[in-house]
Amino acid sequence: MPAQLKLYGHKESGHSYKVKLALTIGQIPHEYEAVDIFLPRNQRPEPFKSLSAFGEVPVLVLNGVAHAQSNAILILLAEHTKTLGGESAATLAKAREWLFWEANRVGFSLAHLRFARQFAPQVVDWLQARFDADIARLAQEFLDGRPFILGDRVAIADFALCAYAFFAEQARVQLPIEVQDWLLRIRALKDW
Amino acid sequence: MPAQLKLYGHKESGHSYKVKLALTIGQIPHEYEAVDIFLPRNQRPEPFKSLSAFGEVPVLVLNGVAHAQSNAILILLAEHTKTLGGESAATLAKAREWLFWEANRVGFSLAHLRFARQFAPQVVDWLQARFDADIARLAQEFLDGRPFILGDRVAIADFALCAYAFFAEQARVQLPIEVQDWLLRIRALKDW
Repeated sequence: MPAQLKLYGHKESGHSYKVKLALTIGQIPHEYEAVDIFLPRNQRPEPFKSLSAFGEVPVLVLNGVAHAQSNAILILLAEHTKTLGGESAATLAKAREWLFWEANRVGFSLAHLRFARQFAPQVVDWLQARFDADIARLAQEFLDGRPFILGDRVAIADFALCAYAFFAEQARVQLPIEVQDWLLRIRALKDW
Repeated sequence: MPAQLKLYGHKESGHSYKVKLALTIGQIPHEYEAVDIFLPRNQRPEPFKSLSAFGEVPVLVLNGVAHAQSNAILILLAEHTKTLGGESAATLAKAREWLFWEANRVGFSLAHLRFARQFAPQVVDWLQARFDADIARLAQEFLDGRPFILGDRVAIADFALCAYAFFAEQARVQLPIEVQDWLLRIRALKDW
């Protein structure tokens, strides 16, 4: 039975565009549903709202499991199809390097230059607002009482997320108590 | 024979910190060498300069192959050790979502808030300078005449990198000719 694939996206989102392009060029059969991204996140329609971990497009549902984050979805598609960079462990490792370079470099500088030129002369205020939203989203993860991002055990997601949080004072920002507690748990790990 | 692992890093780099933390907490035996990141990239010592695809720390050498980009290295470590999120395909997929969320969210807002508060009241100028460096680095990839990032065939790295480049006019930036040509090759693909 072929895999069931459904993409939720929007044509104005560069992140959705990446995934739609991979599905189309890769000739991977899929359903597509446009989500109105001009609605506030909490007013976006079901089932998208329930499926989406971060309230954002794109979301790809693969065999009933919803996946978020455009570049993470690209890795999944490459692994799943064994094409588009997924031909071997070595090509996939190289592709992942470029995906993170993109997230950190042109996907950052170009995307935000576009935004700043159009909307935001006071970019520090905008970064602060974005940070406030980001850190609240992260804090929310710990409301169920679990100690680490993926559950009971520390994992690579924790290491990525905590690194800059340890520099919060230099950015002159306050961390929510849930995030402070999580950082204390990381500091308490053997060999920290 | 156990894997040969060597990390090149620096203690002031949040990106190096992620990888060092994973190796230490995961009790993964490795060598470590500090690289002076206050030297210009082209003056950093060998063998680091040759090993490093982007001239940046961290670089992890695993069984003779050099890997860049901190979050890509974290994925590799999780796959390699089957711990730290690498226990199953499902935990790894979830970890990758968080790694890209981090790159795009707190790893962006917090890292750059810290930078902007310390160094850059004129953040648009700084974004422009960063973009100039980023796009030149990307253009350099095509100087050997290959059509796509990973070689002869289009791959997920191309899809991630091209998405915002198609919005260059909105950011009022010029793309180098090598990048323009690469975008034309992507537009020429069947089903684009």
